[in-house]
Amino acid sequence: MSSVAVFRREHFNAAHRLFNPAWDNDKNNEVFGKCNNPNYHGHNYELEVKIIGEPDIETGYVIDLKKLSDIIKENVLDRFDHKNLNLDTKYFTDLNPTAENIAIVIYNIMREKIDTKLDLKIRLYETDRNFVEYPG
Amino acid sequence: MSSVAVFRREHFNAAHRLFNPAWDNDKNNEVFGKCNNPNYHGHNYELEVKIIGEPDIETGYVIDLKKLSDIIKENVLDRFDHKNLNLDTKYFTDLNPTAENIAIVIYNIMREKIDTKLDLKIRLYETDRNFVEYPG
Amino acid sequence: MSSVAVFRREHFNAAHRLFNPAWDNDKNNEVFGKCNNPNYHGHNYELEVKIIGEPDIETGYVIDLKKLSDIIKENVLDRFDHKNLNLDTKYFTDLNPTAENIAIVIYNIMREKIDTKLDLKIRLYETDRNFVEYPG
Amino acid sequence: MSSVAVFRREHFNAAHRLFNPAWDNDKNNEVFGKCNNPNYHGHNYELEVKIIGEPDIETGYVIDLKKLSDIIKENVLDRFDHKNLNLDTKYFTDLNPTAENIAIVIYNIMREKIDTKLDLKIRLYETDRNFVEYPG
Amino acid sequence: MSSVAVFRREHFNAAHRLFNPAWDNDKNNEVFGKCNNPNYHGHNYELEVKIIGEPDIETGYVIDLKKLSDIIKENVLDRFDHKNLNLDTKYFTDLNPTAENIAIVIYNIMREKIDTKLDLKIRLYETDRNFVEYPG
Amino acid sequence: MSSVAVFRREHFNAAHRLFNPAWDNDKNNEVFGKCNNPNYHGHNYELEVKIIGEPDIETGYVIDLKKLSDIIKENVLDRFDHKNLNLDTKYFTDLNPTAENIAIVIYNIMREKIDTKLDLKIRLYETDRNFVEYPG
Repeated sequence: MSSVAVFRREHFNAAHRLFNPAWDNDKNNEVFGKCNNPNYHGHNYELEVKIIGEPDIETGYVIDLKKLSDIIKENVLDRFDHKNLNLDTKYFTDLNPTAENIAIVIYNIMREKIDTKLDLKIRLYETDRNFVEYPG
Repeated sequence: MSSVAVFRREHFNAAHRLFNPAWDNDKNNEVFGKCNNPNYHGHNYELEVKIIGEPDIETGYVIDLKKLSDIIKENVLDRFDHKNLNLDTKYFTDLNPTAENIAIVIYNIMREKIDTKLDLKIRLYETDRNFVEYPG
Repeated sequence: MSSVAVFRREHFNAAHRLFNPAWDNDKNNEVFGKCNNPNYHGHNYELEVKIIGEPDIETGYVIDLKKLSDIIKENVLDRFDHKNLNLDTKYFTDLNPTAENIAIVIYNIMREKIDTKLDLKIRLYETDRNFVEYPG
Repeated sequence: MSSVAVFRREHFNAAHRLFNPAWDNDKNNEVFGKCNNPNYHGHNYELEVKIIGEPDIETGYVIDLKKLSDIIKENVLDRFDHKNLNLDTKYFTDLNPTAENIAIVIYNIMREKIDTKLDLKIRLYETDRNFVEYPG
Repeated sequence: MSSVAVFRREHFNAAHRLFNPAWDNDKNNEVFGKCNNPNYHGHNYELEVKIIGEPDIETGYVIDLKKLSDIIKENVLDRFDHKNLNLDTKYFTDLNPTAENIAIVIYNIMREKIDTKLDLKIRLYETDRNFVEYPG
Repeated sequence: MSSVAVFRREHFNAAHRLFNPAWDNDKNNEVFGKCNNPNYHGHNYELEVKIIGEPDIETGYVIDLKKLSDIIKENVLDRFDHKNLNLDTKYFTDLNPTAENIAIVIYNIMREKIDTKLDLKIRLYETDRNFVEYPG
């Protein structure tokens, strides 16, 4: 039987600042522009978690999306929602919180919680016009 | 020449109930929760049909999206729109109408109507936040 | 000071059937078409609750939208979500569950829960293309 | 001749924190919850500026939306986009940056820039589900 | 009984050019910029027709939205969809097809087809970010 | 390290006409229907540019989306926005401007501007319901 992909979309609101601590302020401004605001700015992040596998014969589910939603809430939203990604989480102390890096961090968090027989992909919208996808 | 994918999006409104007739009511409630309401609930399903192939030299079309829309209407929407998926269609008598299974059923219906030299994928949105994709 | 309007958007999924029990089946089919399916069909309803008043000096809130969301959940969503509007609620025993009537019912439920010094309006989307607004 | 309303939609990304400096931390947490995070959180704000007036006979425009967009950019977006509303702007030193108050501030800024014969309304989306409207 | 508003959303795709034939080309370019392209440009117009009245006791409808959709199709879409507004319609021979003027024209067309006991408003989206509203 | 995909979404408004100059008018009308209007019609095209590669260690960016946006503006939007695709561009003199062909043209333009170590895909929405994807 062929695989089916299921998607669950969640959102969180967070502040962040993009900069490389190894660079001086001029270099950071040149590269990151207004995203380097030392007082932070923020986004409504839309998170799309994609799980690929075979539907269970008895339920017709690849994964119960209610359970997937709970896993995302406990492991991602509770850590990131209404937080300052640079200051309030442990993930971006040495990692610039670009959309690319946030997606990789979320993938690594989720990968440990999802059955290894299921494939996982992460899509993260920073705005409607800027978004990223990480397939692991 | 490389292939191009074309997409046509349609929608239908339907009622359904999720349950496994081999289980008792307690087990069905435990697994399917409020989706197991015996009086049914419903959704605005958004259906995305993806067709992959080489554009025709004379028309520049992979497939005429007007014709694709007509095929979807005649074969999918006329059977599912404003219907009770469990009671009014023949497809879910022995198959739980989860989004996964509805997508597989639609794929199988459409696969017979689309030229075999064209690839087909189905994406089905049950809500804005819960959706599935079936590549055949 | 001028008033400000605040909006909270919620959603629920429900089944319904449109018909007038005083009419025979032919008349119901003529007027309500496929919405008269005796086995029901369904929708993802999007509900927009608008509250108008003066922002509180100390909080800057017209009403705390988290509290408004809780009021909507307890009084509207818990009664309507994943329900058959005709069979599972008391509101549509003698009232056709058109979008117009559902909006009036929700207005009346919410009006009792919202401080009388605040104005209230209800907008209800049955689909992206069909929606209604009830100002009380 | 009747009036016509024209709308221009713009967006900005900002960080903010909700709290009342006259209250202690417990009271602020009780009222503002996670919106009181001292390290800030953020949003993609969607701003809708509505201008009401009679279309000019020669142009057919109530106001040139390109010019309106420029006025919004120079007077609102340049001050708020990629900023910390509490720290980087002068408007929220003594005013809690709730959506209600941000809309009032934007109205007051815009009112000075728009011809007095034209009416003005501001709608501000903090998220897709939480938004406000200020008619002046 | 209070009134209820019902909305039906439709779309059409059209080409147009903005210019004032009483002006020379320099003046038209100065005022209308790239909208003055003599070879035309185009839009996906989203049309929202709002009808306000009391729901009928027997049906629960202010107006049957299927019938409203048919009226819009026959009287507006059949004249404007896949058309050049300047060349293929009679309405913009002496009237600049700005969003404001298109909304007024659609209002006047629809006003003749809708029962006079019902109020009518037109909203027209030229893009997601530029739109207009005409209340008659 | 695994690759990450980043997306930038832009839009342009254009007029076009679909027809094959080797065919007579009857054949063109039969195949292209109202898209063959000799006076043109138009669309709000939404363009999604997808770039796949490894995030840079120092910036955390696959590509700076501000720079990608500038590349799209200079090379695609400045040529296509508010233009008649058939008459005002050099690309569709001998090529029918179907969504498929526009996507291929945009891919070829962008491929020359994007570092060859990065993969490129183009998605183009002609309407919300009709869109195409070209992976090169």
